[in-house]
Amino acid sequence: MGAKATFFLFFTFFALCSSFPVERNYVPCKHLVLFFHDIIYNGRNALNATSVIVAAPQGANLTKLANLFHFGNLVVFDDPVTLDNNLQSEPVGRAQGFYIYDSKNTFSACLGFTFVLNSTHHEGTITLAGADPTLKKTRDISVTGGTGDFFMHRGIATIMTDAFEGEVYFRLRVEIKFYECW
Amino acid sequence: MGAKATFFLFFTFFALCSSFPVERNYVPCKHLVLFFHDIIYNGRNALNATSVIVAAPQGANLTKLANLFHFGNLVVFDDPVTLDNNLQSEPVGRAQGFYIYDSKNTFSACLGFTFVLNSTHHEGTITLAGADPTLKKTRDISVTGGTGDFFMHRGIATIMTDAFEGEVYFRLRVEIKFYECW
Amino acid sequence: MGAKATFFLFFTFFALCSSFPVERNYVPCKHLVLFFHDIIYNGRNALNATSVIVAAPQGANLTKLANLFHFGNLVVFDDPVTLDNNLQSEPVGRAQGFYIYDSKNTFSACLGFTFVLNSTHHEGTITLAGADPTLKKTRDISVTGGTGDFFMHRGIATIMTDAFEGEVYFRLRVEIKFYECW
Repeated sequence: MGAKATFFLFFTFFALCSSFPVERNYVPCKHLVLFFHDIIYNGRNALNATSVIVAAPQGANLTKLANLFHFGNLVVFDDPVTLDNNLQSEPVGRAQGFYIYDSKNTFSACLGFTFVLNSTHHEGTITLAGADPTLKKTRDISVTGGTGDFFMHRGIATIMTDAFEGEVYFRLRVEIKFYECW
Repeated sequence: MGAKATFFLFFTFFALCSSFPVERNYVPCKHLVLFFHDIIYNGRNALNATSVIVAAPQGANLTKLANLFHFGNLVVFDDPVTLDNNLQSEPVGRAQGFYIYDSKNTFSACLGFTFVLNSTHHEGTITLAGADPTLKKTRDISVTGGTGDFFMHRGIATIMTDAFEGEVYFRLRVEIKFYECW
Repeated sequence: MGAKATFFLFFTFFALCSSFPVERNYVPCKHLVLFFHDIIYNGRNALNATSVIVAAPQGANLTKLANLFHFGNLVVFDDPVTLDNNLQSEPVGRAQGFYIYDSKNTFSACLGFTFVLNSTHHEGTITLAGADPTLKKTRDISVTGGTGDFFMHRGIATIMTDAFEGEVYFRLRVEIKFYECW
């Protein structure tokens, strides 16, 4: 084995390494389960409400979700986030953003929000966006970015409706799997 | 060529490989052309309408896009998606989200939506966001995430207004080029 | 050192290279400081206004930000972007999008917008999303995508309120650090 052959190998390795595609890791590099609690303002619960209807289609009002699958309702929220399903548990942060009911034929919403976490466990934000067909048992949306402990993270969030009471309270369970962690 | 030299090379290769930057691939790893069809509710087309104005600037109403380049109109949509430009073609999914006309000087919108695909070809979601200066022939927006068949994907979507009728119907052609595919 | 040993090394290198995780670079690959200027329509400044309230909670109107930390106000903007803090400087583009005040207990907004840059320095778009607790000195949000000169970029944007006058004018300083540049 001469120097020539070894240097040939060197450049082969070099070429191979430099042209290698990005290695994808399908096992989450970080994993998180959060609950958030949404109490929609209905004109009588100003103290407890955590969200409010700010837009509605023609003929609807801002204290009751519209008929026809709430089509056209824009709801803004600032909901407490907990680590278990108990609204009274110590919050670890807030879920802040909006959902817009966007379908005339089923319950479905366009969702855009950020988890702002601030606890001994986590400090930072996680931004999410996607479609939320609320009647499905689980719905996947995209985690498009993060800051602080979640600097540059990306992943997938699986949303479940964990409980609801009438059209005023509902609780979501969100399981976040990060696949890019930095 | 002794063992010493070979091991020197080994560690050189090792160092080179580990410090290599991420390899970027400028050829799309996946490519998709979709059409979607938007029919804005005007007070008389409740059956056919696929979108609705839910917010407007002071003085405007919710059944007609506002004057002054529609500045301040928020439109929510749940539009059928087809593989060709025919509204009657078998839909392969829905485009769900919103656009907000955000300029006083030209037609321009802030766009946020998700393709929810559900056909024999594709099962999954693609989330997009960006600025849409609608008078330009083509507009590029960001594909910020995906789920299902489009798990963790990122890319660029090029939007063209393929057709429009008055201020009620318009059809967009969207060419999606994914550069991160997983 | 025989051929056998060298080929053993070859495959070792090969395996090592192919399983290397993505190399993360914590030094920004691109860096940008931009200012943008927001003048909210108040019913009397139609000529100068660059943004408009298009949704409000029950009882509030569209020419004045609502009480209770503006909770529920949706503002759409198309603001000039400059390289320094002077509103009169030559704009290098526009910041286009929306913010929604989403808290009853403090000033906080959900922010979604795109920088549309068009100058001798930069041509392209940068899309951002995140939570903006406006009373904090600096706030980090996610840069979720880009086009043109910012093709496929990702990063973090640090926002500072640089100045404000009453509830009508405010100026933001945005420092963008890209960590994925392509």
